[in-house]
Amino acid sequence: MCGIFGIYSHEKSNIVKKVYYGLYALQHRGQEGAGIAVGNGKEIGYYKGLGLVPEVFSNKNLQNLYGHIGIGHVRYSTTGGNIIENCQPFVVNSSFGKIAIAHNGDIVNSSELKRELEKNGHIFVSSTDSEVIAQLLVRELLKDDDIISAIMKVTEKLNGAYSLLIIYDDTLIALRDPKGFKPLCIGKDEGAYYFSSESCALDIVNVDFEKDVSPGEMVVIKNNEMKTYKLPNSNGNASTCMFEYVYFARPDSVIDGISVYAVRRNIGRILARENPNNSDVVSPVPDSGIIFSQGYTEEASVPYYEALIKNRYIGRTFILPTQEERDLAVRLKLNPVKHLLRDKKVTLIDDSIVRGTTSGKIIKMARKAGAKEVHLRIGSPRIVSPCFYGIDMATTKELIASSKTDEEISECIGADSVAYLSINGLVEAIGRNDLCLACLTGKYPTDVSCKFNCEK
Amino acid sequence: MCGIFGIYSHEKSNIVKKVYYGLYALQHRGQEGAGIAVGNGKEIGYYKGLGLVPEVFSNKNLQNLYGHIGIGHVRYSTTGGNIIENCQPFVVNSSFGKIAIAHNGDIVNSSELKRELEKNGHIFVSSTDSEVIAQLLVRELLKDDDIISAIMKVTEKLNGAYSLLIIYDDTLIALRDPKGFKPLCIGKDEGAYYFSSESCALDIVNVDFEKDVSPGEMVVIKNNEMKTYKLPNSNGNASTCMFEYVYFARPDSVIDGISVYAVRRNIGRILARENPNNSDVVSPVPDSGIIFSQGYTEEASVPYYEALIKNRYIGRTFILPTQEERDLAVRLKLNPVKHLLRDKKVTLIDDSIVRGTTSGKIIKMARKAGAKEVHLRIGSPRIVSPCFYGIDMATTKELIASSKTDEEISECIGADSVAYLSINGLVEAIGRNDLCLACLTGKYPTDVSCKFNCEK
Amino acid sequence: MCGIFGIYSHEKSNIVKKVYYGLYALQHRGQEGAGIAVGNGKEIGYYKGLGLVPEVFSNKNLQNLYGHIGIGHVRYSTTGGNIIENCQPFVVNSSFGKIAIAHNGDIVNSSELKRELEKNGHIFVSSTDSEVIAQLLVRELLKDDDIISAIMKVTEKLNGAYSLLIIYDDTLIALRDPKGFKPLCIGKDEGAYYFSSESCALDIVNVDFEKDVSPGEMVVIKNNEMKTYKLPNSNGNASTCMFEYVYFARPDSVIDGISVYAVRRNIGRILARENPNNSDVVSPVPDSGIIFSQGYTEEASVPYYEALIKNRYIGRTFILPTQEERDLAVRLKLNPVKHLLRDKKVTLIDDSIVRGTTSGKIIKMARKAGAKEVHLRIGSPRIVSPCFYGIDMATTKELIASSKTDEEISECIGADSVAYLSINGLVEAIGRNDLCLACLTGKYPTDVSCKFNCEK
Amino acid sequence: MCGIFGIYSHEKSNIVKKVYYGLYALQHRGQEGAGIAVGNGKEIGYYKGLGLVPEVFSNKNLQNLYGHIGIGHVRYSTTGGNIIENCQPFVVNSSFGKIAIAHNGDIVNSSELKRELEKNGHIFVSSTDSEVIAQLLVRELLKDDDIISAIMKVTEKLNGAYSLLIIYDDTLIALRDPKGFKPLCIGKDEGAYYFSSESCALDIVNVDFEKDVSPGEMVVIKNNEMKTYKLPNSNGNASTCMFEYVYFARPDSVIDGISVYAVRRNIGRILARENPNNSDVVSPVPDSGIIFSQGYTEEASVPYYEALIKNRYIGRTFILPTQEERDLAVRLKLNPVKHLLRDKKVTLIDDSIVRGTTSGKIIKMARKAGAKEVHLRIGSPRIVSPCFYGIDMATTKELIASSKTDEEISECIGADSVAYLSINGLVEAIGRNDLCLACLTGKYPTDVSCKFNCEK
Repeated sequence: MCGIFGIYSHEKSNIVKKVYYGLYALQHRGQEGAGIAVGNGKEIGYYKGLGLVPEVFSNKNLQNLYGHIGIGHVRYSTTGGNIIENCQPFVVNSSFGKIAIAHNGDIVNSSELKRELEKNGHIFVSSTDSEVIAQLLVRELLKDDDIISAIMKVTEKLNGAYSLLIIYDDTLIALRDPKGFKPLCIGKDEGAYYFSSESCALDIVNVDFEKDVSPGEMVVIKNNEMKTYKLPNSNGNASTCMFEYVYFARPDSVIDGISVYAVRRNIGRILARENPNNSDVVSPVPDSGIIFSQGYTEEASVPYYEALIKNRYIGRTFILPTQEERDLAVRLKLNPVKHLLRDKKVTLIDDSIVRGTTSGKIIKMARKAGAKEVHLRIGSPRIVSPCFYGIDMATTKELIASSKTDEEISECIGADSVAYLSINGLVEAIGRNDLCLACLTGKYPTDVSCKFNCEK
Repeated sequence: MCGIFGIYSHEKSNIVKKVYYGLYALQHRGQEGAGIAVGNGKEIGYYKGLGLVPEVFSNKNLQNLYGHIGIGHVRYSTTGGNIIENCQPFVVNSSFGKIAIAHNGDIVNSSELKRELEKNGHIFVSSTDSEVIAQLLVRELLKDDDIISAIMKVTEKLNGAYSLLIIYDDTLIALRDPKGFKPLCIGKDEGAYYFSSESCALDIVNVDFEKDVSPGEMVVIKNNEMKTYKLPNSNGNASTCMFEYVYFARPDSVIDGISVYAVRRNIGRILARENPNNSDVVSPVPDSGIIFSQGYTEEASVPYYEALIKNRYIGRTFILPTQEERDLAVRLKLNPVKHLLRDKKVTLIDDSIVRGTTSGKIIKMARKAGAKEVHLRIGSPRIVSPCFYGIDMATTKELIASSKTDEEISECIGADSVAYLSINGLVEAIGRNDLCLACLTGKYPTDVSCKFNCEK
Repeated sequence: MCGIFGIYSHEKSNIVKKVYYGLYALQHRGQEGAGIAVGNGKEIGYYKGLGLVPEVFSNKNLQNLYGHIGIGHVRYSTTGGNIIENCQPFVVNSSFGKIAIAHNGDIVNSSELKRELEKNGHIFVSSTDSEVIAQLLVRELLKDDDIISAIMKVTEKLNGAYSLLIIYDDTLIALRDPKGFKPLCIGKDEGAYYFSSESCALDIVNVDFEKDVSPGEMVVIKNNEMKTYKLPNSNGNASTCMFEYVYFARPDSVIDGISVYAVRRNIGRILARENPNNSDVVSPVPDSGIIFSQGYTEEASVPYYEALIKNRYIGRTFILPTQEERDLAVRLKLNPVKHLLRDKKVTLIDDSIVRGTTSGKIIKMARKAGAKEVHLRIGSPRIVSPCFYGIDMATTKELIASSKTDEEISECIGADSVAYLSINGLVEAIGRNDLCLACLTGKYPTDVSCKFNCEK
Repeated sequence: MCGIFGIYSHEKSNIVKKVYYGLYALQHRGQEGAGIAVGNGKEIGYYKGLGLVPEVFSNKNLQNLYGHIGIGHVRYSTTGGNIIENCQPFVVNSSFGKIAIAHNGDIVNSSELKRELEKNGHIFVSSTDSEVIAQLLVRELLKDDDIISAIMKVTEKLNGAYSLLIIYDDTLIALRDPKGFKPLCIGKDEGAYYFSSESCALDIVNVDFEKDVSPGEMVVIKNNEMKTYKLPNSNGNASTCMFEYVYFARPDSVIDGISVYAVRRNIGRILARENPNNSDVVSPVPDSGIIFSQGYTEEASVPYYEALIKNRYIGRTFILPTQEERDLAVRLKLNPVKHLLRDKKVTLIDDSIVRGTTSGKIIKMARKAGAKEVHLRIGSPRIVSPCFYGIDMATTKELIASSKTDEEISECIGADSVAYLSINGLVEAIGRNDLCLACLTGKYPTDVSCKFNCEK
């Protein structure tokens, strides 16, 4: 995941607080680290740290940053340890001055690129793709000191997912890889241009949505002017990550013209149509099952109840050393409203089944509360193949669906039935065809043979 | 508000971690401070602090506490500054050893009692009612060293709301005032008795609900035996706070045999029946409007959408110094899903209108998102009189409803219409008559003349 | 120990920062907690915490305190756990308003007084003598609402050591017990009166020393006027704690007209005279042996070298879990300059031998560095009796000198010889006769029979 | 300054705690940051942070590090902001695996080297010389994958001061530049080799001193074997920084066979001989003037008193916003023992006069305490030229001595006389000729023309 946010103020006003609020609105895309870099056309200052946005930035830290060009990043750790060196933006000194880069996505061939750079004597202090991109960029600038063509040349070498924000001199550059795996959009008010992973952050800083950055588009802001370029490898065949709609993005965001909320409601309706059952009650597993369930109830005419109550105060400081206490954890997070489940046939709706452990505990909880039958419906198709574009691999591999039939899963987690959304249903719900469905189909939009080879 | 939780283990096992988890489950009743006191029959140890339960207690702090009798408290500050001295349990040394007290509620005549005690040379280090109760208790014990009769004598002097947990020697005492203003219930497993402000905390520590403590009942656990007593002033006329059902308690709790979730769903239905309108969409103001809205949609057959998205990461560490930034705050917390509101007649459902400021901002937000009409429905009746039993007075007084008609409020906050639940509707929704409705009617179940006199 | 500091500003200027600096200068008297209470004639605000003065007080905490009368306290925990409730000043509400008390010393009969108060229904939240004094004071005020006579009546009941600072209404009261066990002095500038445990703190806040509070004197500042009273029990027979001169006070302080530095230098000279030896080198065990050693070298004409180097960065955050690591601790704190000790007869000078463990390690360290002989000289007499007036009892009891001869100690710690200062030498060094020598002689200046009875 | 410490354990035992204690003992060489890197022959783990050693490392952080080869660093910031990126060891990934470098000293031509590397496309994330060295090292390894010859080639390019510790694979390399500007020594016990900036840290981890690393010597530990090499540029002409003896090193260290304590005592004696005066009292400005003063008193037969008392509790958390409060700072740190100065001719001894501001305040303080005359003696010669080898330049430039005569300084700071140690006196005190005296004479042991050119 990860989220990025950037601002270029024509009026040369200090934009650091607005970047901070933008990151706050993107907090759901990454909770493990955050950083802001701001430039004034000459110098770039930055501050990064581990934790949530308000934990990383104190008023004092924000006051030390000043400039009219800024980019920020919230980090969700996929690969690379959770250490401060892996937080972004990545800021370097070069013979072309300081450069700051914030990246959302995963570069498929970053190991190869890194190995090549290392063979040429380059060294690395982090395990971020941003550092690889920075090194490639500086090499291109040495050949031709034009930032536009240098970035173009770099993107020719990159295979994978990259929505990027870059500060260079008095320039802010935003770009989205040719496949448009990850979202990126533009906002505008009288004084500045804004870039955000999701449109909800534009709403929140009170800025009008201008347009999505197109797959393969590079937008350059310099001297109060916005210019747009087409990346060399972009052939118009986008394949945007379907999980942005299903799970990652906030429901109040609109990605490439499609409302995330609408998609999720559609999913619920289609799920009900595809897998009918005559339950007495439909209830979400909060929070991600909520909008699915509301679509489901609309289609299936089963009464909707939020029968599992979530504790809103569970944070990361939770202490759970013993086994007995770990068993407490699910209950602390979720507790059933018993009379809603007693003697009922219940359909629970969730976004996915990971290892099956948590689903099993929830179903047991529902049965203990008196449910006669418990049917589990999942708002996304079975995941069968790894993702190389930015979703946590560890998780994907362990997904129970990759090796078991629905019936086996049912038995394993103690449900009366389990059903997933179909791939066609998903595509219908989103309403666009240019999606990356690699994890559902095994068909990858870019060459990932190196990845599969590596694993052997 | 405030929440209390207690355990007495027959098996003499250390119960401190379970009290901790119980408080965690009651966190919604108070976020400003927390404390745990544990006794082993001889000594009482304790730890208190400002903040959320997991912020107050580290593993190290919990390890320093050890005992088989424990009580805990989460604090919601009504009166008294937010200082550590006002956190509970209140623990004192006396000639009868250490005594620990945790209190939920407000004593109407505590100032009078305090003044009397001060005239007799008593001094106070906090502004809690617990300290007043402790001083009264020790005075009674001096006259007759029997804890049961001493507590009875003390309660004869107390006017107001008090659910209490008390550790004295090897005894745990739980009691609820004769009017039963605040809830208190009992749980049980093989090894221990449990007491909790709400039944949801019993679920979470995996303990069976045994029964509610009745209004005017005192329960005493000693030598593995539970005895029950009737408080002298209890005449069977209960008047339980209706706001526990409407707003305070968690929906997965059952108070005096009535499900909080069911009450809120009923409220939504009755609200729709009492104030029909032909909206295109009904949407809650999250989180408190959600269950109301689901009842409303059921009755009114208006499509239900969660059109306002809440940021789950807003904590208390938020930095908001300037006015412009304060305006950001509502948006950071709530952001509309625009296409759900555009060109629609919208009904928003909330639990109350306080000053009207926030409601106004939300309605403006809905209109900016394109709503054609915005109707506001409130899941509780108009509040017209102050509460002296534990609800924040400052808030009550400033309630816009105390001085304005629905039409005036509508105009003031920019709504097309505003409607409240009726008092009869509320009573029907809860399904019991023995409620405290003082803030709605001005009729108080105990003598509050001293309060009104003080204010003059 | 403990240290107290107070200010009364005629000009009604805010004195909280000056109290803070005063406490900073008294930090050596207590490192476990600190607190400041400030009054404006009506209200008293306060803040307390565990740790060093700059750890307890942030700029923000100090800004929340405002007033022209202030008292502060640094805590050294003798009895009573190291919990925030035991930090001072102790501030209470009473029928006479708020009262704040800061206390240095130990009340011998506080348990008896406490028991009596408890029998009358009083309760206690801390284990401080200040709380006992506060309760007694309020009882006296109830009988006769005159603070001067009330305090006089209270002191009639107190047996032991008490230098006190009290804020009551618009009055600041400072007093020293009739025996003058603990020091207390007065400073003055144009705008205010100052009170401090030691004169060094007056220097540091840039205020002229006015005079010592005499044993048995009470000084009252009210309406810009200083009045002085004689306490009822004061008969002119002072017995000031000799350890203030030997160890506790800073060398730049002057107590009752006698320079602490001068006393320590005298001790060194007398120690050399009383126990001659023909060493090649004299070296202090830093820091407390330094001034003794300089006096010693002056008298004995043995060359002075600081042959043991102290690490100035050892704080309380030091991690030492394993045994091997605990052995590291002495070396981390002290390391010898080897060539100064090699093949030399060395005299080391320290202020005391506690359990003998540390002394043993130091002597071993000196021998390992090549010392031919190691003689230990102690700048105070043998301690043989417990202190009931404020010195840590635990420590006194464990003193190796209470049960062993000098020869036995020598053998035990591996020294070639050990010698202590004589009692006569100590009295000569200090130059006054009205000292408390109870721990050296077993003759107590007040009745301590209750203490000895208790122990049986 | 900065300090470095390293260990190679033949027995493959985990050495991280010992590196921690070694750094603790070198804390005086740098208080602004600390770091430890440990290798197991394959992987290198590390942790770095801002602050003192015990602030940076918690038990938990140390437990995450594990390996038998370790190096650590304490940082004193000369150039480069005080940010975590500038903390060391500097750890990088390269095609040769991970490499960790800890550096003490300043490379004169690092800007040139950096510019050259940048021209070749290298980028930098920090402003440390270690990063420059790392990049150079990897470039050499690419040409010839032999770490020994690669390091030799790198050192041919380096001009300036560098004591280095490097982890590469299963190898620990320690080296000292050909001039031996900064110290570095070797310790040994049964299981491991140790390297430390100063011998005192060997004492503290209880390890025998083996020998100093010679100027221009490289020591390589691999497969339990220690080999030694001569660096290409080393011609036997050492020039060790004289300030290590005068000020930086701990007095219990021995550098190149000469005791730091002995040098400082000699300085005091020679200072007394060179600038006689008939004072009544000689007193150090603590802490750095103490050993000088003891030598001074020995030679001059003036009585020695420590008349200025230092507050041992002044930390970095000190709050000093207003001007009045800044004036308090000197008094909070130092307070005179008045009776030692009253009506006396006083000689104060300090290690240097920086801007003159603090010296002026101290002299004023002495006069206010009653001193009749105040003579200031400085334990080092006048500094007239900048240092490019690791001493804070900012400070050097501002040194009052660079532009004023002794008489002018006297007048400026209010002293009756001021005198510095002569250069010859310094050389005599140290007892070796191969010293760097560049800051005293302007004659630099390496070519620094680029530095002077840069400044123009």
